[in-house]
Amino acid sequence: MGKLVIVGTVAFDAIETPFGKTDKILGGAATFIGLAASQFHNIDAAIVSVVGDDFPQEYLDLLISKKIDISSLEIVKGGKTFFWSGKYHNDLNSRDTLATELNVLADFNPTVPDNYKDADVVMLGNLHPSTQMSVIEQMEKKPKLIVLDTMNYWMDNALEELLQVIQHIDVITINDEEARQLTNEYSLVKAAEKIHKMGPKFVVIKKGEHGALLFHDENIFFAPALPLEEVFDPTGAGDTFAGGFVGYIAETKNISFNNLKNAIVHGSNLASFCVEKFGTERLENLDSKEVKQRLLQFKQLTQFDIELE
Amino acid sequence: MGKLVIVGTVAFDAIETPFGKTDKILGGAATFIGLAASQFHNIDAAIVSVVGDDFPQEYLDLLISKKIDISSLEIVKGGKTFFWSGKYHNDLNSRDTLATELNVLADFNPTVPDNYKDADVVMLGNLHPSTQMSVIEQMEKKPKLIVLDTMNYWMDNALEELLQVIQHIDVITINDEEARQLTNEYSLVKAAEKIHKMGPKFVVIKKGEHGALLFHDENIFFAPALPLEEVFDPTGAGDTFAGGFVGYIAETKNISFNNLKNAIVHGSNLASFCVEKFGTERLENLDSKEVKQRLLQFKQLTQFDIELE
Repeated sequence: MGKLVIVGTVAFDAIETPFGKTDKILGGAATFIGLAASQFHNIDAAIVSVVGDDFPQEYLDLLISKKIDISSLEIVKGGKTFFWSGKYHNDLNSRDTLATELNVLADFNPTVPDNYKDADVVMLGNLHPSTQMSVIEQMEKKPKLIVLDTMNYWMDNALEELLQVIQHIDVITINDEEARQLTNEYSLVKAAEKIHKMGPKFVVIKKGEHGALLFHDENIFFAPALPLEEVFDPTGAGDTFAGGFVGYIAETKNISFNNLKNAIVHGSNLASFCVEKFGTERLENLDSKEVKQRLLQFKQLTQFDIELE
Repeated sequence: MGKLVIVGTVAFDAIETPFGKTDKILGGAATFIGLAASQFHNIDAAIVSVVGDDFPQEYLDLLISKKIDISSLEIVKGGKTFFWSGKYHNDLNSRDTLATELNVLADFNPTVPDNYKDADVVMLGNLHPSTQMSVIEQMEKKPKLIVLDTMNYWMDNALEELLQVIQHIDVITINDEEARQLTNEYSLVKAAEKIHKMGPKFVVIKKGEHGALLFHDENIFFAPALPLEEVFDPTGAGDTFAGGFVGYIAETKNISFNNLKNAIVHGSNLASFCVEKFGTERLENLDSKEVKQRLLQFKQLTQFDIELE
C-alpha cells in the first residue's frame, strides 16, 4: 500500500454557474484531491487540514467512507470553516470570486501524522508557500514524490517563499497563465524550461478545457480534457486532476516518465467527471466501472496507429 | 495513385507578427494545401485557382517542382492577384485584417480539369459557397471524399448557399468559434452533432494552438498542436493542416474513421512546421526525414500505455 498525504483546504463553497447556484456545499482543494485519489484502492491516504465546528458530521462521514484518514483534520472549537464563493461567466472559463473568508484557515499549522511521515507521495494543495514548506520539513523519510499546486496569488504576495519551496519539490502543477506569470515567457515550452531550473524535475501545466501538459527534460506529454456535451461546474476540476495524478502514483509507486504520463491520463479522466455536477457531487458517487469505461473513451479519443519504421 | 483536386485561393500575403513583417509573399489557401499535400508522393494533385499576370514565375515554378498540376491555375492577363494583409496581436491568437483586395478572385469560376473529374478527394478551400458548389457539380464520378473549409464571413453573408453546399460534402473543417456561430451551441460536442445533421458525416473542429477534433457519429478523436518553443507566424496553419489531411487520404484511399484519425495527425504534424517561419517558407524546404522525426515526437506527446482488461 502506497501512502499519500494530502495537505490543503477543506471548505464550504457557494457556486453560481449559468446552470444554477448552490448554498454552502462541501469544497476545498484537499477534499477534491482526496475524493479523486480514493478511486485508487491500494493506497493509504490522509488529509491534513482544518475546519470549524460548523463543519457537518455527514461531510466527515463521507471522507471516512472513502477510506480517507482524517485523524489530522483538525476541528477548531468555536471556529468557522474556510468559505469561498464564486460566480462563473457564461463560457465557464472565467469566474469572479464573490467572497473569501479564511476563518480557521488563517491560523492553520498543518501537522503531519506520525504514521504518514514516511509517505510515498506528498500532495501540497494550494496554500501559503511557507505552510507548504513546513509540511516538507516534517517528513522523516524523503518521499518518492512531492507534488505542489499553487496559484498567481502567491506569486503576487509571497514570491520569495514560493521560489524557496519550489526548490524542494518534484512536481509543480500550475495553470498556463500562472506559468507565464512565473517565468515571463509566453511559450509554455520555454516557461516549463525555466520552471525546471527553479527546482521541479516535472512541470505540469494545466490548460483547463484545453488539457494538460507534462514536461520532463526534453520530454513532453499532453492529455486533452475529454470533450463533454455540457460542463456544469468547473469548481475543483484542477484539484480532482491532481488527486487522480497523485492517487495513481501512490498506488503504483513508480515515478518514471511513462508512469507519470499514465497518472496524467487518470487525473484528466477523473476531472471529466468532476465538472458534470456541482462541487463534489459527481465524485461522491463514482464507481470504478464508469471510470474504466471513460478511460476507454480517453484511449479512443487520443490513441492512433501510425507505424514509423 | 490517388487523385486530389484542390480549389482555393493562390495569393499574395503581407504579414506582420511581433517578430517581423514581410512584403508581398506567396500565400493563399490552395497554396498551403498544395504544399502540405505534396509531402505525400503517391498522389496526383492539381490546384484549381486564378492569379493575375503579376504573379511571379518563380512561384509557379515552385508549385511545379512540388509535382502539383497547375494546368487549371488560370492566369488573367492584365489582372492582379488576390492580396491579403494582416497584423497579428502579441499572443498570435488573433489578428487584424489590414487589406483584402479580391482582384481577379472577384470573377473566379473554377474549372476542374477533365483528368481530375474523377478525383478521389476534393478539397474545397475557403471560397464563396456557390463557387464551392460549382466544383462539386463538375465532378463526373462521385469522389470518395469531399472536404470543405469555410469561415464566419460566409455564415454572415451567404448562409443559405453555405447550408446548401454543406449538404453535399463529407467533411467540414471549421474553427471552434465558427462551429459555435453556425450552430448556436457553446459545447463543441453539441455543435458537431448539429453540423452532422446538416450533412457532413465527419466534422473537424480546429482549435488553433489547442489542437483539432474529429467527430464521426459517436466517435471523437483529438490531436493537439505540437507545443513549440516559438510560434513565428500562424498564417496558413489551418490550410496546411487541411492539406496534410487530404494528402494522406488521397494517398491511402481509405476513409475509415481510423484512417481519418491518422490523417488528422499528419495534418497537425505538418501545421507545426508551417508556423515556424513566415508564410510558406518552412513548407517549401521540408524534407520527409524531418516530417517523420516530428511524427515520432507527436506519438511521444500523445501515446500512453494503460491496459484496460
